[in-house]
This record gives sequence, structure tokens and C-alpha cells, in this order.
Amino acid sequence: MPKKNLAQAAKLLARRLNQLARVSDVRGETTRTFMSPAMDRANALVGGWMRSAGLRFREDAVGNAVGRLPSRKPGARTFIFGSHLDTVMNAGRFDGALGVLLPIVALDLVRSQGLELPFAVEVVGFSEEEGVRFSSAYLGSKGYTGRLSRSDLGLKDASGLTVGEVLARHNGRRRPPPKAAHRKRDVIGYLEVHIEQGPVLEAKGLATGVVSAISGQTRARVTFAGLAGHAGTTPMALRRDALAGAAEFILEVETLARARPPLVATVGWISAHPGTTNVIPGSVELSLDVRHPLNPKRRAAYADLCRVARGIAGRRGLRFSVKATQDNGSTTCSGSLTALLERSVRACQATSLALPSGAGHDAVILSSLAPVAMLFVRCRKGLSHHPDEYVHPRDLATALAVVVDFLTRMAYRPAP
Amino acid sequence: MPKKNLAQAAKLLARRLNQLARVSDVRGETTRTFMSPAMDRANALVGGWMRSAGLRFREDAVGNAVGRLPSRKPGARTFIFGSHLDTVMNAGRFDGALGVLLPIVALDLVRSQGLELPFAVEVVGFSEEEGVRFSSAYLGSKGYTGRLSRSDLGLKDASGLTVGEVLARHNGRRRPPPKAAHRKRDVIGYLEVHIEQGPVLEAKGLATGVVSAISGQTRARVTFAGLAGHAGTTPMALRRDALAGAAEFILEVETLARARPPLVATVGWISAHPGTTNVIPGSVELSLDVRHPLNPKRRAAYADLCRVARGIAGRRGLRFSVKATQDNGSTTCSGSLTALLERSVRACQATSLALPSGAGHDAVILSSLAPVAMLFVRCRKGLSHHPDEYVHPRDLATALAVVVDFLTRMAYRPAP
Repeated sequence: MPKKNLAQAAKLLARRLNQLARVSDVRGETTRTFMSPAMDRANALVGGWMRSAGLRFREDAVGNAVGRLPSRKPGARTFIFGSHLDTVMNAGRFDGALGVLLPIVALDLVRSQGLELPFAVEVVGFSEEEGVRFSSAYLGSKGYTGRLSRSDLGLKDASGLTVGEVLARHNGRRRPPPKAAHRKRDVIGYLEVHIEQGPVLEAKGLATGVVSAISGQTRARVTFAGLAGHAGTTPMALRRDALAGAAEFILEVETLARARPPLVATVGWISAHPGTTNVIPGSVELSLDVRHPLNPKRRAAYADLCRVARGIAGRRGLRFSVKATQDNGSTTCSGSLTALLERSVRACQATSLALPSGAGHDAVILSSLAPVAMLFVRCRKGLSHHPDEYVHPRDLATALAVVVDFLTRMAYRPAP
Repeated sequence: MPKKNLAQAAKLLARRLNQLARVSDVRGETTRTFMSPAMDRANALVGGWMRSAGLRFREDAVGNAVGRLPSRKPGARTFIFGSHLDTVMNAGRFDGALGVLLPIVALDLVRSQGLELPFAVEVVGFSEEEGVRFSSAYLGSKGYTGRLSRSDLGLKDASGLTVGEVLARHNGRRRPPPKAAHRKRDVIGYLEVHIEQGPVLEAKGLATGVVSAISGQTRARVTFAGLAGHAGTTPMALRRDALAGAAEFILEVETLARARPPLVATVGWISAHPGTTNVIPGSVELSLDVRHPLNPKRRAAYADLCRVARGIAGRRGLRFSVKATQDNGSTTCSGSLTALLERSVRACQATSLALPSGAGHDAVILSSLAPVAMLFVRCRKGLSHHPDEYVHPRDLATALAVVVDFLTRMAYRPAP
């Protein structure tokens, strides 16, 4: 493909991302939550772009914006692209939106090259992934894959409205949870393009990377309890300082995770009680977040950290307790799709890099319907969930080239 | 002295401590703050006990309860006993009160033995030491020693009343800050009996101990700043985790203090920002409290800890800043008074133990008027500032014996 065409397409994509970012529930920022007025306007805008690229547009029962490019080939199966159109509060322009708008532009490029795809393509803008309105993520992709449960429908937002009530208002009547958009056997695969939300591609000097797996995640609340005491009158040798124990644990978390890449483990929150300058902390609570693309590695790391904490507590005369508050398994990307995607990446930039995704994505839910793959795009300083989120237009062009190349390879690969 | 007399005197002392603890501004607990109604009643109660021991009672211009036992010896100088009668909120029965009520009972015992003292004795119940009402400590002892400054008089309580206004109400008219109760040359010394508020005597199995010095104290606010980041997408090697740096510092504080007894150093408060499970802390603030009976040792430890923190920050790519919020020098106890007190302690229990006081006491202020000494009394589990604060009656008896012995030695020691 001529570089000029790509650069123009990237410009168009950047312009659309900017335009979509101005569609917001809050003036002056980018905030769109599930089934909000701004989401209606966003779907209308994205639907227009889908139509102009030759896709048939519909909005499904959970508010997903779905554009379909049928194939002339009889009995053709469907390849799905997607990401989400909702945002966190005061978000950036790329998280989610990129994975919806980029494939639309890519399909237009493919069409302009006169390439006829031997499969149908659907581009989906999922209506909910960030979990802002109902404190629960993936409502859009769950609806699309027929995995929205009765308990999901009973979730309430801040005003007391349930998901079910919001859907009924949207659809004009109460309906049972929507069925899956496709039968499993009719779907070839799913590709999600997303900003990395991390610093690895920037550090490696690469525009794009291929996701190997979406990490599983264990979250826990850890407590060390010792003995509060007067900071002036209790000699060091007679102390049972819960914060000193917690500090030892925090360093062990860091050391263990450093020794086992790509494991990441984080203590993000800590609270010492009573929390006064002149009192030795009697107890400390802290959060633990452990992620790894392989479930057994994640579970082993969590178990080892619990053992380490128990050892620290034992040596220091502290009591230790831990409560897991979340435990999600990992999602492995499809070997064959990922291999194809890596070939496309190598065709468009110097080298391909496989990296795990430490954050969750719609691909986690789509993996129940289809083999999934993900393309990460470098973002400045790894920043996301912030108005300063930024992807350079050159990187948009590279990502577009990768997706066009990927579609071409898909079109010419031998039927399975 | 017959053991029976001592045991009876200790019982009387315990009864009086219980009775005084019921004098409170808050029903069902022990709470007495500067110039409150309960402090008036406490002074009246203590004044009665002073009178019955043969002391002349007066309340001075800052609300101190002063009992004076004159000497028949012409030109006799004065020895002072004292501690405070105010309390923290929901206090125990011994902190402060013990150092006022014990000398009264001891003087009664001395009188009952027919001993004529060659010096006058004053027992002072200071009206303010805990700093509750005006967030500033030592108002009573500052008034007694003539050190109450104009800025002290301008301090405001929660209702907006100043110390000066409260004193004017109490005294019926506005008066200049009160003068010192004594000229320096008229005072022999000051002895304060106080619960240890720490676990050392209990650990050593001793009823009493002699204070070597009252530690100086440096307090500071320490900040480590790194880079916040996504806990899932930022590999360990690319992190600048402020909490991991802070944890390293907390352990260094502990290690350094352990290596330099009787230094104590404490991190009692910590706060990580943004303080969310799935975000790497971008900055951490923590408190540092460093105490040592010798000023140069305290200053060196604080400087060393700042250096250590700077080193940690440098290695980890963090920014470090520190702000000292308090810096009080230490008070050294009088060598001759302390030697005499140690002899009395050795006469009443197996061994004498010299220990620093990590907490401040009225003796800090009294040291500007007289040589000072302090006798610590064992308290259960080192607990203070709590309703469960407890001193065993046997330990009260030992402390009484020490003070009676001390007064006897004072009476017979050669004139200086």
C-alpha cells in the first residue's frame, strides 16, 4: 500500500478519534458511560462512519454499535473486530475508541485496494467495558456473546436503576437477556486493537506489539497486627511494629515479582493504625495485586507471597491475615491468529514483540465465542485513563498497515 | 519503716487515685482539661488531702494546686515535688496524678516517723501538661516557673477563648503573666514521680527506675515521589514505585535505631497516593519521630536517616524531601539528685536501673528553675493514656518507700 494513502488514512483516523472524544456526558472532558445520552450520540456518529465504509449498521439490544460487511461468498463465516466506546470519567481519546475506529478505516483501505474478502467482517463498538456506571465491567461484550446473566441484569447504578431496567427503557420493552450475536462455528476469530496502557513498547522503540495473553489477576487485602505503643517510651527491642513488618513484606513482593517476569505484583494502598506520629503502628492493612499471563504461575506467586508474609509475621511476633477479594483466570490468545498477526507486524515494522496484557479487555469475554488476538499500539509514557493519553499519528499509520496486512493474509490463507 | 505502715499508705494512695479518677468533665471516664470544672473539683479534693498531711494549700494564678510544708529552720530552702492533674481524653488513673498524690502520702509517713525536715517542701499539682485544650503542653509548669509567654497567653481553644481570657476569668481580672513561684537560689531541687508509660521496668522485673534524662525529639514529614502507573501493564523493571522506596526507608529506620540504643525512631503514619489497589503509588508521605537522651546523638541519627533516604531515592529514581516539624532538646537529670535517688531505690528493691524518658514531663520545664530528678514506676504492659492504665499496689508501696527514703537522705545529707 502506498505510504501516502496510509498517512492520509491515519490522519482521518486521528480526526475521527478527536471528534468522538468531544462526544461526552460532561462538557469539556471525555466521559461516556453505559447507555448515557453521549453513548447514543457516539453510536450515531460511529454508525455513520461504518456506513460510509460500506458496513451495515445496527445497534443491538445492549447498546453495542455493530457494523457488518457481508461477504459475497456463500456460507461465509464472520471475522470480528472490536473494542469499547464507553470511557472512564475524564478519559483520553484512544482507550477503546481506537479498536473500533481503526478497523473501519482499515476496511475502507482494503476496499479501495479492490480486495474482496472471502469472509464477512463485523466491527463492534461495545457499549460497556470500563465498569463505571454499574461497578461491573464487560456488559457490552457479555451481551454480544450471550453471557449477560440474571445477576448482571440486577446490578444497580448510583440512582438505583438496574441494568435490566436501563435495557428495557432502551429497547422499549422488557426482554430476556439477549442471545449471542453468532453461533461459535460461524465465527473465524476476533481481533482487538488497543493502546498498550503501559511503557513496554515505548521502552523498546516499537509502534505495535502482539499480545500473548491477557493476565489473570488475584487481588487481596493483607493485615499485619502487632502492638501499638508509645513511640518515645518503647525501646526498639520490645516493639512489635506492624508497619515495619508490612514494609518488609512490600519489599518481598517487589523482589519476588522482579525475579519472575512477566509477573507483576503491586501494593497500591496501605493504612497504618492508629496512624499517629508518636504511636508505634499496632496494625497495618494493605492491598496486594498479582498478575501473570499463566494461571499456575499467578497462583504459585500468590501462595508464595502469603507464605513469605506468614514468615515475616512469625519472626516479628505479628499476626498475619489475608483475604482474596478477586481471582480472575488469564485468557490465552489464539496461537494461529497470533502467528498471523506477528507476520503482519514484522511486515510493517522492524521486529515483532510478544507481550502479555496486564489489564483486562473485551477480548477476555469474546474468547468464549471465538479465538482471539490483540494488537497493542504504543502510547506516550504508557499513560491511559487520562486526558493526556496520546498515540502518535505515525503509530496509527503503522497499526493501520498491520491490520490491512492481517486482513489480506486472512483473505489468502488456506481454508482451515 | 514497718512494712505494714507502707502497705496501708499504698492502699490509701490507691484509694485516693481511684477517687480522683472519678472527678471528670465527662461522665463515666477520666477527662480533665485545663481550667475545666472538673479541674476545680480536682484541686479542691487534692487541696483537702494536702491540708490533712499538714501542708498549706493554695491555688496559684494558672490553676496549679500548691501545697507547702514550711520548715522551722530559718532561711530554709524549698524542695519541690510535682506532676500534673490534667489528663488526656478518657485517661487512666496514674499518669500525672501519681506524682502529686504520692508525695503527699510520703510526707505524711515522714511526719508520722517524727522526722523534722531541714527544708521546706512544696507539692505541686500542675494544671496543664497534656496539651489537650490549647494543643500546647506545659501551661501549668510554665506558669509556676514564670515562663508563660505572651504567645502562650494568645493560644486559642476550640471555642476561640485564649489562655489569657481563661486565666482572667479564673482570677477575676486580667493580669500579666504570673511570675516564678520561687527564685532559683531558694530551690534545692525537683523530683517527679511518674508511671513509666513504657515496658522496660516490666521486662526487667523492677517496681521503680531512675530517669537519666528526658529525651529530645525530632519530628519530620518525609516524602518519596516516583511515578504512578498501571499495576497490570507496567513491568517491574520499568517501575518507580514510591511505596517500595518508603518501605526500604522504614526498615532502615528500624535497623539504624536498633543499632544505637537507647535511640528510638518510629514511622507511625503513612499515606500512599493515589492509594488504589491497581495503581503503582506515585508518591508516599510518612512521619518520622526520632528520640534520644543526648542531643548530638539524636541530631546525628536524624541526619543519617535523611542521608539514607536520599540514597534510597537516588538508587530508585525517586525524589525525596523532608521537613522537620518539631525539634526539642533533651533534659539531663541532676547528677547529685539522681545519685541520691538511686541509693534510695537500691535500699528499697534489688537493683536500680537508669533509663531515659522517651516522653516529655513537667520536669522538662522545671529544669529551668531547679536541678531535677525523676522516679519511674512500673505500669502494666507499659500502657498509658488509656482507662486500663494500671500500677500494682505493691509497686505503689515500693515507690512510697523510695520517696520516704529519699526525703530522709535529703534531710541528713551534708549542706552543700
